[in-house]
Amino acid sequence: MFSSSRAESPLPAPPHVERVCGVRCVSLPRFSDSRGALFVGEVGANLPFTPRRFFFIDAPAEATRGSHAHREAHQMLVCLQGCCAVLADDGVNSAEYVLTSPDQGLYLPPRTWSVQHYGAPHNLLLVLASDVYDPADYVNDYEEFLRLTRQPRRAG
Amino acid sequence: MFSSSRAESPLPAPPHVERVCGVRCVSLPRFSDSRGALFVGEVGANLPFTPRRFFFIDAPAEATRGSHAHREAHQMLVCLQGCCAVLADDGVNSAEYVLTSPDQGLYLPPRTWSVQHYGAPHNLLLVLASDVYDPADYVNDYEEFLRLTRQPRRAG
Repeated sequence: MFSSSRAESPLPAPPHVERVCGVRCVSLPRFSDSRGALFVGEVGANLPFTPRRFFFIDAPAEATRGSHAHREAHQMLVCLQGCCAVLADDGVNSAEYVLTSPDQGLYLPPRTWSVQHYGAPHNLLLVLASDVYDPADYVNDYEEFLRLTRQPRRAG
Repeated sequence: MFSSSRAESPLPAPPHVERVCGVRCVSLPRFSDSRGALFVGEVGANLPFTPRRFFFIDAPAEATRGSHAHREAHQMLVCLQGCCAVLADDGVNSAEYVLTSPDQGLYLPPRTWSVQHYGAPHNLLLVLASDVYDPADYVNDYEEFLRLTRQPRRAG
């Protein structure tokens, strides 16, 4: 669906190595019984930021969304139903992460270009973001994104 | 499914009147196009607390969950798929809120006894909570809950 990496390597990276800067898969513990399954994430455990915005997307098959980066916002993506292939790109390396289960989260730090492609007939994606909506935080032009990745980050 | 109120009134309360203390329905704006629908909530707009925990429940038809209150935690419930009837009870009044659409959120303040009953063949409920998991915040006994509701609240 997407090219897996622009920085080709003859051997796959070990799983603990981040191929795309800061991007990582996060496990969401599942608790199941006859009443169904519960999946959980929380700040300080598996959610590396405090969310101030949430949104969820109900997407049809073959829909593509995203194609932007955030200057400052952190995000966590969880596919609650269906399948979502996420291209993540830090300006040097890129990789595709295929989310197919609600026990997987994908953390995207600021300055990550991301594209989501939905693969099942019915798809639900939950996104938690560290900041409220601010159009100025979005970078929608890929060349501008590449210039941004070359700038030093603000002191934290 | 649940009794609608213990404090009966000959006329329904106007929509702006809270029948159950602090509980309220919240609208989540929907943005739709050919790529699907996006629903959003954020702190300072329609989310009256900063979440530190999220969980989602994949529940079969006729499952019942909840049956507890929280001492301090605020919660927001959103039914992403299916149907969830939420009994909310403040110790004096109770009401049932039927969540059937992802553009509706239900805010539950602390000290609200709540029971969720799932009505569709497949149900997904998202819950955002103001605090990380703490077993001491749960009140699982209804009589203890009633005693709690008679105690003064801590200064904010």
